[in-house]
Amino acid sequence: MATRLPDSEFDDRLEAVRDRLAETDADAGVWFGATSIEYLTGFHHVQTERPVVLALTQDRIEIVVPRLEVERVEPNPRIDAVHHYFDYPGGAPIETAAEMLDGMGVESVIADADGAPGVMGYEGPALSEFVDVTDQSWVDRMRWEKTAAEIELIRESAKWANLGHRYLADYTEPGEHPATVSQRASTDASRAMLDTLGDTYSVRVRGDGPVHAGYISGHETALPHGHTPNERLSEGDVLITGASANVDGYFSELERTMFVGEPSDEQEHYFELMLEAQSLAIDALGPGVSIAHVDQVVWDYFEEQGITEYAQHHVGHNIGMGGHEPPYLDRGWDDYEYVADGDEVMREGHVYTIEPGIYTEEFGYRHSDTVAVTADGTETLTHFPRDLEANVIRH
Amino acid sequence: MATRLPDSEFDDRLEAVRDRLAETDADAGVWFGATSIEYLTGFHHVQTERPVVLALTQDRIEIVVPRLEVERVEPNPRIDAVHHYFDYPGGAPIETAAEMLDGMGVESVIADADGAPGVMGYEGPALSEFVDVTDQSWVDRMRWEKTAAEIELIRESAKWANLGHRYLADYTEPGEHPATVSQRASTDASRAMLDTLGDTYSVRVRGDGPVHAGYISGHETALPHGHTPNERLSEGDVLITGASANVDGYFSELERTMFVGEPSDEQEHYFELMLEAQSLAIDALGPGVSIAHVDQVVWDYFEEQGITEYAQHHVGHNIGMGGHEPPYLDRGWDDYEYVADGDEVMREGHVYTIEPGIYTEEFGYRHSDTVAVTADGTETLTHFPRDLEANVIRH
Repeated sequence: MATRLPDSEFDDRLEAVRDRLAETDADAGVWFGATSIEYLTGFHHVQTERPVVLALTQDRIEIVVPRLEVERVEPNPRIDAVHHYFDYPGGAPIETAAEMLDGMGVESVIADADGAPGVMGYEGPALSEFVDVTDQSWVDRMRWEKTAAEIELIRESAKWANLGHRYLADYTEPGEHPATVSQRASTDASRAMLDTLGDTYSVRVRGDGPVHAGYISGHETALPHGHTPNERLSEGDVLITGASANVDGYFSELERTMFVGEPSDEQEHYFELMLEAQSLAIDALGPGVSIAHVDQVVWDYFEEQGITEYAQHHVGHNIGMGGHEPPYLDRGWDDYEYVADGDEVMREGHVYTIEPGIYTEEFGYRHSDTVAVTADGTETLTHFPRDLEANVIRH
Repeated sequence: MATRLPDSEFDDRLEAVRDRLAETDADAGVWFGATSIEYLTGFHHVQTERPVVLALTQDRIEIVVPRLEVERVEPNPRIDAVHHYFDYPGGAPIETAAEMLDGMGVESVIADADGAPGVMGYEGPALSEFVDVTDQSWVDRMRWEKTAAEIELIRESAKWANLGHRYLADYTEPGEHPATVSQRASTDASRAMLDTLGDTYSVRVRGDGPVHAGYISGHETALPHGHTPNERLSEGDVLITGASANVDGYFSELERTMFVGEPSDEQEHYFELMLEAQSLAIDALGPGVSIAHVDQVVWDYFEEQGITEYAQHHVGHNIGMGGHEPPYLDRGWDDYEYVADGDEVMREGHVYTIEPGIYTEEFGYRHSDTVAVTADGTETLTHFPRDLEANVIRH
């Protein structure tokens, strides 16, 4: 069981970006994105309108943060100097970053953006008003291939997601409210995770627990991004569940199509088609396989079965620090000119959700499992049973 | 009680942007941002890597969505035509948008961005590869001044937040787990809201409830963005709570500093300083008042009390469809060149969180209330008592 990344992960990541930096003419690498900053340094913060700016040279790492992040970032062993502005906008965040770069002797940077991301109404100057800026997306690309230590966190996430999912099934009965079942399952699985992990738990969430399990129900399942309706559960309802757990900032994804009581023949029919599509997709996955191929396999199966009209999305996405990450399992992926050359095959360390869906006018049918590509095959990290019998809830 | 925006709100918003469009040389207004698209049309979707593109002319509104949003957007009475691509990236979203614009006879647009936002690893072409693009941020700016109907939704949100907050206080005892108390309060308040509103509830959340109430505790409160620790509550703990409810996509913010058992003299001292700072800020608010002034009033008070070293952020932000929105109550706001001229005073319809904080090495002290600026003063929308006595939890 691993619930935190070892220090060596950060050493390796920093070495990798320093190697990339050495190949450029820039004096420093700069990052504005919260996930990239966390990936490189382990310093986690909520991305808001307040800019955070990380600068890396061959021998130093400095950062600009708003005043309210100072105590959190100062103990970080990888960051050599912390600069701060009071708040946005009066504290002049980008000007503070320009001063930091000047103090580091940096005149040109290669950055993940030419300024802070425009979230929560942020507006401000471009960094290129102060220094020479070229762009890179090194970290975004590095994140595609997870290390063994990262996959271990996703595996741990899948374990607690499974518990949340078990509780979902246990608490489901006709007459129960889907929101309440969802929130009870999240509460109880979170508490079990917190009590089990104890001091090894990485504190990550605010006013909430680390596990979320829940479902959408009834006709809302016919929408891939449906919501939880304000309607009690009844016999014959279809559920599309979802469960995940935050383990040191990493996530897994587990979804199941479940039935409240016996499914109808039609429901069973679409469930089995969906299950077969998912099995075909999982079997198609592997190192060196074209990313587009997996989605094409499912599409070919849907064509053969005459149900392409019931498909509404591609087969899946990557998952890790982000709930949705590239590469996307999309049959157009290989031809997508915005993806760099040579990035059209699966590699060891890619972690895919496999979730082909079928949506009739009445209900939706979709499982999602989280599957890692290994050196010689795949490992399915989620482990709730996929078969029909395990997903029929009888009381 | 109002739990949904009336149709007339959307009529007014669309008329306003059409008036703005008429003042330009552009053939159409275009929006990529999910919140802006919802604000104009009422069509709500989760912003992902899949672009959604809304185009508005003087007589038509058309939209491009991924296949999985078609059934949700088609019933929308304000959208005249729905175009879709299958999925990202194979479905060529921006190319589909360019075809839509071509079909509308549009050759130049004024847009909220020159392409889809780069969330979840999205990469793709600029819209300006296909049509002439200039930029606007009309909706972002329109959202500053809420209408009476919008404030009514925030008021309704504050009501359910208050219930969640009451449950938080009721469920708090030494020995309880802060995550479990938080999740139980969220579960029970959500259920009360769902059962009370019934069919008038706007379905908005997935696998969860509409109310979130929770807290951070112990030394984590010393960090403005602290987390919920994996430690049982004990006598003498300080809590910083937070509660909100989603009412048709609108939010309020309620936070309280609470004590588990009797506070120490020092804790009471800082609580009272914080309370006075918040009272001063609320009193300073009003139509025509400089936005920077309110933060300055609090800063002056902190200087007078000799506690500026314990301040870590400005006084507050606006709230509505976003949890953090401009304008920001920051003493540098008036001088901030990126804010358009004439936007440095408070106006009727601005809705501010008022949340000056004091952070010692041990604990933090912060209340947050949601306050609307009215034609001749203010209305505090949140209503949990602010005084010390109401915020000491005794058993």
